[in-house]
Amino acid sequence: MTIGIVGLGLIGGSLGLALQNTKLVSKVLGYDHNLTNCEDALSLNLIHEIVSFNEIKKCDIIFLAIPVGAIINTLGSLEDIDENTTVVDMGSTKGEIIKSVPTSIRANFVAAHPMAGTEKFGPHAAFKTLYQNKIVVFCGTKNTADFHKDRATQIFSHIGMRIVFMEENEHDKHACFISHLPHAISYALANSVIGQEDPKSILLLAAGGFEDMSRLAKSSPTMWTDIFKQNRENLLTSLELFETELSSCKQMIKDKKWDELESWMGDATTIHKIL
Amino acid sequence: MTIGIVGLGLIGGSLGLALQNTKLVSKVLGYDHNLTNCEDALSLNLIHEIVSFNEIKKCDIIFLAIPVGAIINTLGSLEDIDENTTVVDMGSTKGEIIKSVPTSIRANFVAAHPMAGTEKFGPHAAFKTLYQNKIVVFCGTKNTADFHKDRATQIFSHIGMRIVFMEENEHDKHACFISHLPHAISYALANSVIGQEDPKSILLLAAGGFEDMSRLAKSSPTMWTDIFKQNRENLLTSLELFETELSSCKQMIKDKKWDELESWMGDATTIHKIL
Repeated sequence: MTIGIVGLGLIGGSLGLALQNTKLVSKVLGYDHNLTNCEDALSLNLIHEIVSFNEIKKCDIIFLAIPVGAIINTLGSLEDIDENTTVVDMGSTKGEIIKSVPTSIRANFVAAHPMAGTEKFGPHAAFKTLYQNKIVVFCGTKNTADFHKDRATQIFSHIGMRIVFMEENEHDKHACFISHLPHAISYALANSVIGQEDPKSILLLAAGGFEDMSRLAKSSPTMWTDIFKQNRENLLTSLELFETELSSCKQMIKDKKWDELESWMGDATTIHKIL
Repeated sequence: MTIGIVGLGLIGGSLGLALQNTKLVSKVLGYDHNLTNCEDALSLNLIHEIVSFNEIKKCDIIFLAIPVGAIINTLGSLEDIDENTTVVDMGSTKGEIIKSVPTSIRANFVAAHPMAGTEKFGPHAAFKTLYQNKIVVFCGTKNTADFHKDRATQIFSHIGMRIVFMEENEHDKHACFISHLPHAISYALANSVIGQEDPKSILLLAAGGFEDMSRLAKSSPTMWTDIFKQNRENLLTSLELFETELSSCKQMIKDKKWDELESWMGDATTIHKIL
């Protein structure tokens, strides 16, 4: 089986590394519109070869590992692929992407969201074990041909992923809470500190807690603006829910309702029984 | 030098473990009003012996590793210690504690905040390397006798800590941004998800990002209510600053000002040039 990966950053590059170790795959080909990324991906052995987009279109499976807006733009160029070619998108939002899949390749298409990543990006951020023991969500597979769905299942499970099927609207709502909202919060926390008179003195005291909470604010602004754009409605709703929680925390502190505050914190700790 | 540690949880227990390895220390004695903690601390070898509070008072250095409210309550019982006995508090807030130190032992007192911790608590959470390469903040040392200040400096540097001197009001403001505000945010995020109809399906998708952002919400509600109480004013101010940042993020999303949003995210990423 030949694999074509469009986008050779953290997501595409790590996939290339992982796939080179499976017996299912004969060749991993890569494409990126950024030439430096192509050179880096080659020298880091993320893929076997760099090829043209037309060569990518001849692969058995094409993975789209580019920002969600770019996925939507690229889908149009895949309208004429062979009926045996599987197309998998790796984007963080699913609703808008699924809507934009051309009818002629709807059966070929698997909308996937690997719940894996780091705050780093680009080919140098890629590593072979990124996907191991992580979840990948498949959306809208009722319109995907079994042949293509099974192929994607096989590939993802061979790189150590566990597959979850979910309706795309549900996915976008859940991913918002689990990933998009936390990113907005982390950027806002970082900006609260950066906006202070003497951020250096404040950050001198930073230990593990703050580092964890601000880590997501290292992520690529371009990529995340794009995700926020695609999942705008859900993000606005979840931001409002979060604001309500935080404001009730503030009110309890203002009113010195310490017992109530402690019990609110106690509710929060129960999340770790599920996590 | 004999050491007396009051409170044998994560902070006191880890200190006991670390101090047993320094040549400066002959004996590490422990006290905790919770008998289970005493038994656990002994069986985990966090300290050499469990003694009464009166025995603790005869040690060369007494460390108070208990919640900040309890530190304030305990200081009164130390009024009559020897002039050569050093008292070090390990609390997360400093202003209220320093105000409550009895005049008779003001010269003996070092207000210290080790910027180290995990979301876990209790004797079983203690580990020897908690303090290695971490910062400890000393506050209000202008009223501390050099003998006691130097002794505390020596002890903390021997367990691998770097010392920072800071005025207590400044400390409480900075610690708020770096630690107290992030805890409030983490609790609020956890409660936003817990409040949803189907938190299990949402949390099925949780990966590293969400785990980092919700980790602090595992922390002890009793201890953190106490910290919020002691640092109420700063916390209210920083919560408002954070709310303003988050609300401006929400407004940009609402108004579809994507370029502005990207540049706001870009500002946030600069924090990692300082961190």
